[in-house]
Amino acid sequence: MTPLSHISIVLVEPQSPGNIGAVARAMKNLGLSRLVLVNSQTELTPETSHRACGADDVVARSVRCATLREALKPFHLVVGTSSRSVPWISGVFRPSELADHLASLGEQEVALVFGPERTGLTNEHLDFCRLLVTIPTNPEFESMNLAHAVAIVAYELYQRSDARPVGRSPDLARTAELEELFDHLERCLLEIGFLDKDNPKRIMATLRQILSRAELEDRDVQILRGILRQWSWYAAHIKESQHQNTA
Amino acid sequence: MTPLSHISIVLVEPQSPGNIGAVARAMKNLGLSRLVLVNSQTELTPETSHRACGADDVVARSVRCATLREALKPFHLVVGTSSRSVPWISGVFRPSELADHLASLGEQEVALVFGPERTGLTNEHLDFCRLLVTIPTNPEFESMNLAHAVAIVAYELYQRSDARPVGRSPDLARTAELEELFDHLERCLLEIGFLDKDNPKRIMATLRQILSRAELEDRDVQILRGILRQWSWYAAHIKESQHQNTA
Repeated sequence: MTPLSHISIVLVEPQSPGNIGAVARAMKNLGLSRLVLVNSQTELTPETSHRACGADDVVARSVRCATLREALKPFHLVVGTSSRSVPWISGVFRPSELADHLASLGEQEVALVFGPERTGLTNEHLDFCRLLVTIPTNPEFESMNLAHAVAIVAYELYQRSDARPVGRSPDLARTAELEELFDHLERCLLEIGFLDKDNPKRIMATLRQILSRAELEDRDVQILRGILRQWSWYAAHIKESQHQNTA
Repeated sequence: MTPLSHISIVLVEPQSPGNIGAVARAMKNLGLSRLVLVNSQTELTPETSHRACGADDVVARSVRCATLREALKPFHLVVGTSSRSVPWISGVFRPSELADHLASLGEQEVALVFGPERTGLTNEHLDFCRLLVTIPTNPEFESMNLAHAVAIVAYELYQRSDARPVGRSPDLARTAELEELFDHLERCLLEIGFLDKDNPKRIMATLRQILSRAELEDRDVQILRGILRQWSWYAAHIKESQHQNTA
């Protein structure tokens, strides 16, 4: 099992100071301590502390980031929470299934990403997520309070936290390395005219999902970047010899 | 399974108007609709409605009773929630075990009783309870928000009442298409000199593993083969213009 100390709750653009406190309380009840606030839309207020109700230490140690991209750099596995169906993510778990999945892994840095209260995670946020966790809810009244959602997912993880992994755990690449790979791939695909210069993100979103699902390890990223470097070298080499021939 | 429509949430002496709203929201999210308020210590306020966030109907239809004894009259099975050990109750369940237990029963009227925010259920309240449900929590920080506790117990009950799968099954590509993709990739990587001509299989084996893990669907294979075709076109195009220039 991924230890609870390696699991972070990432709140994207939280809007309510009370919810931040309530999330901290639920986290501490259930053995989690690492909170990340991305582009918070609110200050911390006395309501935060009131709702934290003794979990002020979790709030005080929270990490603040300006962008989700920046916030996710240290993580091996990024899990989004949404009740929406997301066509490009096939790994959709219930909270109990996510707990089973994490129980099968070793020590990974895991981010559980929760969207803004009013909208949930957008497609742009979900592009960073390899897995999705969906809390089964009443289809006629799905929108759940942020802290309630955190409590339910954390409850499942806490229950499994004494499990031991079997088999080999993949040595997953971190998001920072994956992002460099995606940037490199995008430059190459623009160069050969595969991507639309005015709208490269649509196809790139699919490619990101494919490579995210592949659970890339460090050595895999090295091989793939090696291919891209060789590809650039090859193209430059042809052009160079062309230039010499015409000179 | 006891139908969700036969399960009531009974709040004993609730103190916070916001919590009553939050409890109603969590209940409606998770398919419960019957709320009983026993000797409520607070009026309903705008904060109740704000936190109910669309579950005002649950609050409006709630039943009010002066005493727990009165409130529990209609029920077949009374389940208390507490993190305390109660010597005279031997049936102590985790929420998931309670859901299993209710799944084994027929149509019973079930009351899930939650105590006041500050103290939880007292011995006097617990005298009415035949079973106890305990949410496993961090022993150093056990006191959970009332609505969080309701959400977690209701989540377990809802899961058992709703065996439908969440998420989408991937429409995986067949092996034949994958093999064509691997062949195409190998030709391209030989062309740019990334693979050793005498031993291309070693690196290809790693790339096959990466792409197999990615659970490629038909449309993913089409995109990847599109990239390879575009790459070949681009290389041929450069060579062609080189040929024309030198001719």
